[in-house]
Amino acid sequence: MKYPKGVIPPKEIALKKKVRITKKGTEANRGMVFEADINSSNDYYLKIDRALISKRPTPINVVKVDYSNGAKITQAYFEKQSTTDYNGVYRGKYLDFEAKSTQSTTSFPLHNIAPQQVEHLERVIRHNGIAFFLINFALLNLTYLLPAQYICVFYREKPRKSIPLSAIKEHGILIKEGILPRYEYLDAVDQYYFPSK
Amino acid sequence: MKYPKGVIPPKEIALKKKVRITKKGTEANRGMVFEADINSSNDYYLKIDRALISKRPTPINVVKVDYSNGAKITQAYFEKQSTTDYNGVYRGKYLDFEAKSTQSTTSFPLHNIAPQQVEHLERVIRHNGIAFFLINFALLNLTYLLPAQYICVFYREKPRKSIPLSAIKEHGILIKEGILPRYEYLDAVDQYYFPSK
Repeated sequence: MKYPKGVIPPKEIALKKKVRITKKGTEANRGMVFEADINSSNDYYLKIDRALISKRPTPINVVKVDYSNGAKITQAYFEKQSTTDYNGVYRGKYLDFEAKSTQSTTSFPLHNIAPQQVEHLERVIRHNGIAFFLINFALLNLTYLLPAQYICVFYREKPRKSIPLSAIKEHGILIKEGILPRYEYLDAVDQYYFPSK
Repeated sequence: MKYPKGVIPPKEIALKKKVRITKKGTEANRGMVFEADINSSNDYYLKIDRALISKRPTPINVVKVDYSNGAKITQAYFEKQSTTDYNGVYRGKYLDFEAKSTQSTTSFPLHNIAPQQVEHLERVIRHNGIAFFLINFALLNLTYLLPAQYICVFYREKPRKSIPLSAIKEHGILIKEGILPRYEYLDAVDQYYFPSK
């Protein structure tokens, strides 16, 4: 794969981050590759000036800073993101989403979603923003945009502990994959949220 | 001042953060109080469900993590924000702004603005988002919303090294101050961007 100048190949980004080797190691890895692919898609959208979407930095709780030589943080802890990972502007509208990868081949488990993320997405909907999940079925090579409306109701009513793939196919939109962008998810946004464009 | 449950008084937030004592100490302090006041205004807007606006976490470059007992960051550095400090959704629109405090009583010095922030705001404007600066004249107790359109042109053409207060008065909107919210800046957003509402 050839990437234009300035676009860092997603796998390189993923490799730069240190992943702990645990039972969930492979799953975490896939999640990072998917995240890096979404980041590179956003870089591409920025480059062609189609949208301005960025990943929120992981919040870090800084405890100690050593000022003896510049400002060096010597004790800090990762905090859980209380919102979603991505937000930005597209066609004037506020856009907000979470990107998740699953190894399941049949459904998207709700334990991937934090209660405060559901609250956050419900707020975005109330303020007429565009809110969704990008759900990647890593073993199937299938990625869907699923509107947050559907997810929030499912999460609140909890008819099941996971959203069946069949329901995601019915209520979501399949995302085209390619090289640049890796995930053409704004086409899915157009199809669902701007049907006249 | 009485704050309702859940709203942390801005000065407490400012006091929690450690400020280095330097020549610029007082200015940094004022900047932090202003930032804390904007954060508390946003908390209030969230509470009354008027808008969903949040501060981007300061990006931190994590160099070393000790995994011997949980994940403890042992070496990291603050990075410069390459965008603005705040973004969110209001009336369905994407909203993006920077909040700055100055001790000048006559003008807003352009050195408070980073070139990449101007680029970022120009992008927001191109994608039809709402973009502005909140400029606080600390010694005058005056705070203005100044549309990014004006700032970006001024920054590019640089007729002067600072934007005169008189120009800010002419092209910006004075923000009402009170207790809750401390800065009623969404009224200024309404006045400028949603004149019919």
